[in-house]
Amino acid sequence: MSATTSTTRPGGRSARVRAAVHRAVVEFLAENPAEALTLPLIATRAGVHPTTLYRRWGSVAELMADVASSRFSGDIVVPDTGSLREDLRRWASDVATDLADPDVLAIMRAAIGSSPDGGCACTADRHAQLTAILDRERSRGGTAPETAHAADVLLGPLYYRAIFAGQPADPGWTTELVDTLLK
Amino acid sequence: MSATTSTTRPGGRSARVRAAVHRAVVEFLAENPAEALTLPLIATRAGVHPTTLYRRWGSVAELMADVASSRFSGDIVVPDTGSLREDLRRWASDVATDLADPDVLAIMRAAIGSSPDGGCACTADRHAQLTAILDRERSRGGTAPETAHAADVLLGPLYYRAIFAGQPADPGWTTELVDTLLK
Repeated sequence: MSATTSTTRPGGRSARVRAAVHRAVVEFLAENPAEALTLPLIATRAGVHPTTLYRRWGSVAELMADVASSRFSGDIVVPDTGSLREDLRRWASDVATDLADPDVLAIMRAAIGSSPDGGCACTADRHAQLTAILDRERSRGGTAPETAHAADVLLGPLYYRAIFAGQPADPGWTTELVDTLLK
Repeated sequence: MSATTSTTRPGGRSARVRAAVHRAVVEFLAENPAEALTLPLIATRAGVHPTTLYRRWGSVAELMADVASSRFSGDIVVPDTGSLREDLRRWASDVATDLADPDVLAIMRAAIGSSPDGGCACTADRHAQLTAILDRERSRGGTAPETAHAADVLLGPLYYRAIFAGQPADPGWTTELVDTLLK
């Protein structure tokens, strides 16, 4: 690497390394059990020196938290149909579709397994999206449930089935969840 | 080990080994991240030869599935108060108490992380308990929701909060979940 490259485009190189490493994690988890994932194996696959990974992420847990929060950020566009019920139905259906993707499940399981203190970055963006949908209804002059309650009724069953039951969601079921929330 | 011991009490020895290994896993996970767990480390801690673990469980994933299904079997007694609402309230509160235990969460996270195909043995017993409560109400001549719907409304939020939000449940909240289910 030339001094010019490293001094003039540090952000560019840094972003490329991060993208390569994230891609390597996703590919690795599609082929291997999460327990086999190590920083040196990911470094080799990403074509990056292991020291770079240790310096930047420190541990598998930190790397997985970064991959999970990146993968689950801004991936679903919040619908705006003018109707709270219809917005929630579309959004819940999009979340269910996402949770039916085996690569998504593999990342999520690995992030949960390596999380040292509970919690998982996987769902922070889902809460933000849900809050945006509910706030928009209020700004229209309508009433909407609190985010915590809506998350219990919608995200609870969606993630519970995906993680514990290994069951795929069908579209009719997510509509029922929304109808339960809005009575 | 004498020939007498190994021929007269094979079940006894086998059960003792299993108990020692399970205890070693629980203790290990209370002190270390799940990603650090290996069969040789558990063998050393349990005072068992590594070959025994490889022969019996084959992989970390199989060992964790065994620990999870054993830990989450028969640990909660199904209440029988004569009232469906009261039975469900007590049971949901017991599940919430169990999910507030850091050791329980560590086992569950490790079992999810090492599960190769989704699903987790953690909740099979919860479904059986829920089915028993709902069936008992029907045998009393009452009506009760289907298990799948009851699991969505009760277990969904309980496990979702425990795993993704890292939030502890308060007793009032589990009562609300039951009231949502029974309207």
